[in-house]
Amino acid sequence: MDSTELLNIFNCIGTYGETNNGMYRLAYSDADNDTHDYLFNLLVEKGYDVRTDAMGNIFAEIPSSEPNAKIVATGSHLDTVHCGGKYDGTVGVIAGLFALEKLKTCKLKHTVQLIIFRAEESSRFGFSCMASKALTGNADIKKWLENTDSNGMNFFDASGTSPRDIENAKLDNEHYKSFIEVHIEQGNILESYGLHVGIVSAIAAPTRFCITVKGHADHSGATPMDLRSDALCAAARIINDINHEAYIRKDEGTVGTVGKLDVYPNSMNVVPGEVEFTVDIRGIDKDSVDAVIKHMYYSIEEATQIHHVKFNVVELCNDLPVNLDRSVFQTLVNAAEDEKIPYHEMNSGAGHDAMYMSKIIPTSMIFIPSKGGISHHPEEYSEFDDVILAGQILANAMEKMAN
Amino acid sequence: MDSTELLNIFNCIGTYGETNNGMYRLAYSDADNDTHDYLFNLLVEKGYDVRTDAMGNIFAEIPSSEPNAKIVATGSHLDTVHCGGKYDGTVGVIAGLFALEKLKTCKLKHTVQLIIFRAEESSRFGFSCMASKALTGNADIKKWLENTDSNGMNFFDASGTSPRDIENAKLDNEHYKSFIEVHIEQGNILESYGLHVGIVSAIAAPTRFCITVKGHADHSGATPMDLRSDALCAAARIINDINHEAYIRKDEGTVGTVGKLDVYPNSMNVVPGEVEFTVDIRGIDKDSVDAVIKHMYYSIEEATQIHHVKFNVVELCNDLPVNLDRSVFQTLVNAAEDEKIPYHEMNSGAGHDAMYMSKIIPTSMIFIPSKGGISHHPEEYSEFDDVILAGQILANAMEKMAN
Repeated sequence: MDSTELLNIFNCIGTYGETNNGMYRLAYSDADNDTHDYLFNLLVEKGYDVRTDAMGNIFAEIPSSEPNAKIVATGSHLDTVHCGGKYDGTVGVIAGLFALEKLKTCKLKHTVQLIIFRAEESSRFGFSCMASKALTGNADIKKWLENTDSNGMNFFDASGTSPRDIENAKLDNEHYKSFIEVHIEQGNILESYGLHVGIVSAIAAPTRFCITVKGHADHSGATPMDLRSDALCAAARIINDINHEAYIRKDEGTVGTVGKLDVYPNSMNVVPGEVEFTVDIRGIDKDSVDAVIKHMYYSIEEATQIHHVKFNVVELCNDLPVNLDRSVFQTLVNAAEDEKIPYHEMNSGAGHDAMYMSKIIPTSMIFIPSKGGISHHPEEYSEFDDVILAGQILANAMEKMAN
Repeated sequence: MDSTELLNIFNCIGTYGETNNGMYRLAYSDADNDTHDYLFNLLVEKGYDVRTDAMGNIFAEIPSSEPNAKIVATGSHLDTVHCGGKYDGTVGVIAGLFALEKLKTCKLKHTVQLIIFRAEESSRFGFSCMASKALTGNADIKKWLENTDSNGMNFFDASGTSPRDIENAKLDNEHYKSFIEVHIEQGNILESYGLHVGIVSAIAAPTRFCITVKGHADHSGATPMDLRSDALCAAARIINDINHEAYIRKDEGTVGTVGKLDVYPNSMNVVPGEVEFTVDIRGIDKDSVDAVIKHMYYSIEEATQIHHVKFNVVELCNDLPVNLDRSVFQTLVNAAEDEKIPYHEMNSGAGHDAMYMSKIIPTSMIFIPSKGGISHHPEEYSEFDDVILAGQILANAMEKMAN
């Protein structure tokens, strides 16, 4: 398959769920189901052994005839967020297809497989990586039954599956040798280095908090500075402190963000009486993440004293960073060197299906640059040439592992 | 009139526009008009010379028979904000009525007058102190014609007046000797001193800004700390700096507040790309206010460099502080001492009708404590005994000035 045909397939996928304001291909929406049908038929036409499981995940294989052949797999997803882009997920499916097409004519000891996962984005049901969670035995069936989309439909209604199906969806890790996911970076590191490929050694895990600051809503003109309990000033101190503490740990790969903040009553002439904000701290070095969290609590204590406010801190999650498989990582490095493609060894700040796959199968990832670091947005963009570069490294590495 | 009758009148006023969620007596609403009718009839019954002008302001007098008698006036307003309290404004009308009732039997050289102003709160048309602006020639007729309430009705439609009426409403300052307004403090200074009365020597003026910070909305996990343009971190720096700079100038009576702040896109896993916030700096010492403003601009310059963001600063207003009349102030001090009522000499952080009256008539104010500093809120509360204390000082001072 030449790159023009591949680009045509990529462009065709981009028509499903396309609007004037970005992509709307939520998990199990008509647009998402149609895209899966299109890919299923295409893969059958191309001569692969293709099956779907109860969730609708697609598995397309070049089977090996060898006894005890294990599976060398790649894969990504096709669903998008609300108002999303055309690259997140799709790029990994296209690179996987590129690799399988290249390996079609090779005689391999192992089976090679492309997995197209369902429901990676959390936009519909509030859970991310639902397929890779199910395939690796990490589904939280109880919560999946409870949570619904904005129309009151839960995952099971929308996908036509049952809790039993999900329990049965788990892959046998004994059958798999490796998994590699190609994905857009969703950040601006590769762009800042002027490189076209990243090879990923670890995936950062988020620790998240929702923090409420309770002060006192007073008249902005009539309340002297020393008689105030200004919730926004207290929050501003925490925001600056988290930012500073994460900044000095930037070489450890740690980041800290206050992305959402709401002020009450939010009026020009009233001292803010209450502020609610979220904190998202991520890293691949747990000690470094913990140091920022410790500093956040210290900063909260200080702000309590200085601004005469009260804090309520709710921890939303506290996940462990994932170190990807060193051997798969090294195979990717060797493949990039074979292909004479300069690469950057890096971490993933965002979560991916590879994070769950790595729990049962030796796993690594390849990143390509996101223009301007933009993702989950209609302006999300990556060079198609970079998808091909990633596909070349992927094919080379899969061939090495399948021999 | 004994204080029980006065309390009954106060309570009766509190029934107009009362809801389960505070007072709704917006300027020229039915509730507001009914309250004015009730007061007009009450003042006629009590034997005062009562008239209204084209705006519906009430003027109730004990006329002097002396030739060239000037007017010694007091007054306040009856309209409320949305979801307001029962004390703001009304307390000044009740204290004024208390004073006039006391002076009824005295033989005075000068006329004493109670003015009940319309439309002091800005909640309906976006302009505060509309009556006192009109009575002192400070109405901005063009803007009053343009701006409308939430139903598309402008001030003239709602009040049944014309621009010509407003031009003719101006008082002749030659006819007035003094004006004193009793009001709730709307802050917590008196409460913090444990005092029941404040005598006001100056009214702070606000300088206000609307500031937009433009950064870059990036993935919170995938964007390293040194490749961010975080608009909220930049805003947090300004918030803390304004707070700190106003705090160190607290003895100069200066205050600085960021009361309203909105984050875009306001999502837990996105670095804030844009933040819009307001700044409200007030004081009675223009140099002190200017020093805080200068520091704000310095802080903006610093944040621009550190956080790689752009600022857009719009100045909304830049008013001059108002020094109230020293002679009227001293008369109030003497009156408080006569009445053996301890008082606190203070400034007003909030604007009042007295601010505009002072432009053409020697003016001062008396404050009573606001419980917990709360105002413009259903929980707004002042002790009725304090209204009587203010009324005693007011009556004593008006008698002094009317002789």
